[in-house]
Amino acid sequence: MEEANPALGLRAVRFCLENKDIFITQIKAILRAAAFGNIKLLIPMISCMEELIQVKAIVRQAVMELERDEKVFNKDVPLGIMIEVPSAVLMADELAKEVAFFSIGTNDLTQYSMAIDRRNRRVAHLYQGLNPAVLKMIKMTLTAARNNNIEVIMCGEMAGDPINIPVLLGFGIRNLSMNAASIPVIKKMVREIDMENARKLSDALFQFITVEEITRFVQDAFNDVIPYREVEA
Amino acid sequence: MEEANPALGLRAVRFCLENKDIFITQIKAILRAAAFGNIKLLIPMISCMEELIQVKAIVRQAVMELERDEKVFNKDVPLGIMIEVPSAVLMADELAKEVAFFSIGTNDLTQYSMAIDRRNRRVAHLYQGLNPAVLKMIKMTLTAARNNNIEVIMCGEMAGDPINIPVLLGFGIRNLSMNAASIPVIKKMVREIDMENARKLSDALFQFITVEEITRFVQDAFNDVIPYREVEA
Repeated sequence: MEEANPALGLRAVRFCLENKDIFITQIKAILRAAAFGNIKLLIPMISCMEELIQVKAIVRQAVMELERDEKVFNKDVPLGIMIEVPSAVLMADELAKEVAFFSIGTNDLTQYSMAIDRRNRRVAHLYQGLNPAVLKMIKMTLTAARNNNIEVIMCGEMAGDPINIPVLLGFGIRNLSMNAASIPVIKKMVREIDMENARKLSDALFQFITVEEITRFVQDAFNDVIPYREVEA
Repeated sequence: MEEANPALGLRAVRFCLENKDIFITQIKAILRAAAFGNIKLLIPMISCMEELIQVKAIVRQAVMELERDEKVFNKDVPLGIMIEVPSAVLMADELAKEVAFFSIGTNDLTQYSMAIDRRNRRVAHLYQGLNPAVLKMIKMTLTAARNNNIEVIMCGEMAGDPINIPVLLGFGIRNLSMNAASIPVIKKMVREIDMENARKLSDALFQFITVEEITRFVQDAFNDVIPYREVEA
């Protein structure tokens, strides 16, 4: 069936929960593979507690069936969720009590929070780094994770852009994912940044209300460690 | 140009800001009409401060041109914005300082917050009233409005469903919009509800984390004033 807005459609965990036979087969395969290596389960597009409850029931069922069939598997695979739908940010404290880790998906989180399809060139100008609303959501997610002692990973393109690094470190993020080409630059920055300064910056930046202001503020504060980039006028 | 996800595309204020000649003509027409009646300006789909800054500049330009052309008009038309994009909720405190009122658009706010197209039958089951994430966003918006002394109107279908009324009144909402058929039922409820009880309910409901639990809680607490409805199992 063609969907009018596929980005708001039957994707990811929604597809899995509509196709439980496929989903449980995948879960079982992952639990079996986990007997032989370090594996985590990460569920994308969680938007509410109801979905997580269903996912956990299916994982339990997979474990029961593997036990019944006397398969070699690991039932202690950490279960995490993507935080990429705005409603999940609002429910982060409740969700954090039920999972082992969060992975913040900055691309989709920005798209849904701003209601923009960034692959649509007519609105892509609204998709920008250091968006204050998205930064607030990242901060809320991190607070919820910290209050519940769970780990947070950050994926999406945000962690690969140098300008974001002082802010993310200041917020307390310690796990960044990025494409391989970005690693040397970001690694060098992480080593050079004074964490106390980063923390102060992350507290102070919400006095600014536009992407341009925030970008200038970060650029000025960490001019010595951020590789040269032109700030748009 | 066809858009892959029109709900995340060039809509509403985005279209206006890309087509400023059309937009300023509309603004001028509204300001001129406002010389003859009670009119407010309400801008849809605001997602960031940058858009509001541009809108206000165009309104100022419209005023200047009308003055220059010696037209009869009203330059004191209250300017409000729709709160229907999640990022606007996160920026509500900052936005409230720049406008005369908010109108919370519950339909779109729920859609974007949950990343679901409710006209898509495959995911419409995720679109439900009394969604805790959406309720938190409504509460955040109301807090920001109250802190900045601006008015809040609620539109969308939420205000027309009796089960939501004790919660919305408890949050402090006093302006509800709905279709005409709902008015008698809702009006009767509003008259019957004890506001102090509603306030207590709205404080207590976030102990629950699913739509079903919250719905039962509200139903049980206001059983005497909510018209009969079946609570889904």
